[in-house]
Amino acid sequence: MKEQLEVTLTNIRTALDREDIALAQKLLNKLHPADQADAISDRPLQEQTEMLPNLNVDNAADVLEHLDEDEAAEIAAKLPLETLAGLLDEMEPDEAADILLDLYEERALAVMEKMVSTDNVRPLLEYDDDTAGGRMTTQVPILHREMTASHAITYLRNSKPDSENHYNLYVIDKDGRLLGIVGLRELITAKPVTSIEAIMNSDVISASVNDDQEECAKLMSHYNLMNLPIVNQSNQLVGVITYDDLVEVIEDEATEDIYALANLSADSDLDVFSPVSMMITRRLPWLYVNLGTAFLSAFVISRFEATIAKIAVLAVFQSVVAGLGGNAGTQALAIMVRGLALKQLEFRHIWRALGRELVIGMLHGLAIGIAVAGIVYLWRGNPWLGLIIGLATFGNLLVAGVMGTLVPLTLKHFHQDPALASSILVTGITDVIGFALFLGLATLYLPYL
Amino acid sequence: MKEQLEVTLTNIRTALDREDIALAQKLLNKLHPADQADAISDRPLQEQTEMLPNLNVDNAADVLEHLDEDEAAEIAAKLPLETLAGLLDEMEPDEAADILLDLYEERALAVMEKMVSTDNVRPLLEYDDDTAGGRMTTQVPILHREMTASHAITYLRNSKPDSENHYNLYVIDKDGRLLGIVGLRELITAKPVTSIEAIMNSDVISASVNDDQEECAKLMSHYNLMNLPIVNQSNQLVGVITYDDLVEVIEDEATEDIYALANLSADSDLDVFSPVSMMITRRLPWLYVNLGTAFLSAFVISRFEATIAKIAVLAVFQSVVAGLGGNAGTQALAIMVRGLALKQLEFRHIWRALGRELVIGMLHGLAIGIAVAGIVYLWRGNPWLGLIIGLATFGNLLVAGVMGTLVPLTLKHFHQDPALASSILVTGITDVIGFALFLGLATLYLPYL
Repeated sequence: MKEQLEVTLTNIRTALDREDIALAQKLLNKLHPADQADAISDRPLQEQTEMLPNLNVDNAADVLEHLDEDEAAEIAAKLPLETLAGLLDEMEPDEAADILLDLYEERALAVMEKMVSTDNVRPLLEYDDDTAGGRMTTQVPILHREMTASHAITYLRNSKPDSENHYNLYVIDKDGRLLGIVGLRELITAKPVTSIEAIMNSDVISASVNDDQEECAKLMSHYNLMNLPIVNQSNQLVGVITYDDLVEVIEDEATEDIYALANLSADSDLDVFSPVSMMITRRLPWLYVNLGTAFLSAFVISRFEATIAKIAVLAVFQSVVAGLGGNAGTQALAIMVRGLALKQLEFRHIWRALGRELVIGMLHGLAIGIAVAGIVYLWRGNPWLGLIIGLATFGNLLVAGVMGTLVPLTLKHFHQDPALASSILVTGITDVIGFALFLGLATLYLPYL
Repeated sequence: MKEQLEVTLTNIRTALDREDIALAQKLLNKLHPADQADAISDRPLQEQTEMLPNLNVDNAADVLEHLDEDEAAEIAAKLPLETLAGLLDEMEPDEAADILLDLYEERALAVMEKMVSTDNVRPLLEYDDDTAGGRMTTQVPILHREMTASHAITYLRNSKPDSENHYNLYVIDKDGRLLGIVGLRELITAKPVTSIEAIMNSDVISASVNDDQEECAKLMSHYNLMNLPIVNQSNQLVGVITYDDLVEVIEDEATEDIYALANLSADSDLDVFSPVSMMITRRLPWLYVNLGTAFLSAFVISRFEATIAKIAVLAVFQSVVAGLGGNAGTQALAIMVRGLALKQLEFRHIWRALGRELVIGMLHGLAIGIAVAGIVYLWRGNPWLGLIIGLATFGNLLVAGVMGTLVPLTLKHFHQDPALASSILVTGITDVIGFALFLGLATLYLPYL
């Protein structure tokens, strides 16, 4: 099945390259909207805006939902107003709102005027993209407390079926306040005359519209929730975050952590084919920060220039000490950052974590320090040089473990992103300490070298 | 609500520290099993095995499911046989199988003899932990093609309710082969006499028992599936992977990528509180690899020892060039690795990706190269030294972008994990090229320095 899909995708690309739009369209129509989105996602914008309106409206709306947000925004900016309005009407309210928010205000207003209904979308335009309100959909299957099970089923039968999967039904009172939750399964297996209130579970976990999307994702993944109901300040049910949003948030957060650890701005919008200008603005500032730490190290080394002038071989090995420390520090850091992200670790564990890293650092220091000392002694034939570099490596690996633990925990404690800046701080510190330890010891024992 | 939970968790810890087990137990019983798991997860093993059997069986089984796999395994190894058997009977078959697989074989067999039913669990013991078969649950809600909607509802009403959320019902033929899927919602909104075959969707996406769990997760997230049915070679339905497994797989894969980029074994079982011995076996081998690349750099520098002996200041700046290259290479690498993981990028994009990184590398090279040249000139007053370091930085940043792109794409092309080893290769190469460029240029223009 997967191979067949690959063949079809290749055929579509070949047809498009040959400008055989009709064939491409025919092949495209056979695919799932998620694959249609893949097929057109790396084509020129011109082609995308030509092809999209030729799919049936349902499909085209699905394709827009499956595209990256910035790709969808680019296409939406080019489509004829009527076409776009028709598509937005078919889309999930939260996805439609995302696209509207990415349009120029004038165009967004014009499109909304041509839409059949904006009731579901309009409230979503108020919320920040990364809050519960920005992620939620407003299409919520609602039951009232006084209904019976058979009423509820008839009511569901007559209501417009949702395109998102809502298998939890939310129970509200007459003021719209969230009271409880009923599974569709409990509903159909209940006796028809049972009241909803009797079968609902009132122990319902919810979040508030202004909560951060990451907090919502953590709630959902912690309690294994498929959907998370979202309430306003008066506890009125205003929307629901579904499991597919959860998956997106988890992927985005992982992307941000990976970027932050690689000294990139923690911004999940950035991807391999983001505009070059965006790449530069997310990467270059961190290279300047790195420039700063690099010159700090250079300054430390310059304090030992006289020593190096006497024994040039020190320049050969100084980076070994610094580099190993940086590497070990990054290892400790990655485990801490992931532990914090997955909530396996809190600030109160700091002593336990530090103690462990001290032990690990010492064992690493012994294992690597002895190896380094041995190699340098064998290569250069000077036991003192071997001893000094071995000691410096031991010390720096100890520092690396401690810093890899302390820096992220401290940042987290002061409500900063523990991933961001941690990496540059840890390697900056292990560089400085590594150079200072090795060159310092060498200066002290200069007569023996 | 969150604050209240924190208070309760702290009170439980305080009670346990005071050895007031009764109070701890009372507080614990009020919590959701996910939070109960949190509350006991960092307590001594002795305490955990004492507390767990005192919860009611349903809750205790849930707590075991919410604990980390290795924590659950440790507790399972200590619990009395009968207690453990009772808990495993209540657990999801896939989670129970995971625990059984972690026990010594003798103990596993003894426990299974005491369990009420092992029919659901036994088939799962054959599959690898990271395959579809290892992840799936065997509790699948099944309908037969010849049923009517009202038959199906009666059938569901009489069947034992599942604890996992199955809202998609799978339709099979008389040989157990997967034919289609019916949503619970479609079922209850269909006319009672409609046949299941008429309302089922036969375009059902499935995976095979031996497929990699990562592939399954990608299918689910690509097509926004809540559940993924798993079939054997004869297309017989044998299980289903649910959305909560999907979330776990996505988190595990992100953890592995983060670890791999930090030069750690890509193994999501490793966390902040893993045994020290495990920490060392996952980290130390990579430090030895790093030792190799560090001495490779040292060897390159040693070729220029004569130059450094004449002009010691080169030792001060050599690491600036290498370090900036390593940093820029890691940035490019992180974006590529994430793009490959999220399938935004394939090998056929290699020329486009390389072209972009060449442009970005040149712009970074100009921006950083000029800055480095300026700082060195101002600091040392030697324009030639500034020029040389600026040129070397420019060249190394270009190399960094190219290597950050080529290395992961090439590894992926040869079916290797693009994250693993990429980082050490890219920084190894930028180190060697950085030192060689700077010291080589310095040797060429020695008279001017």
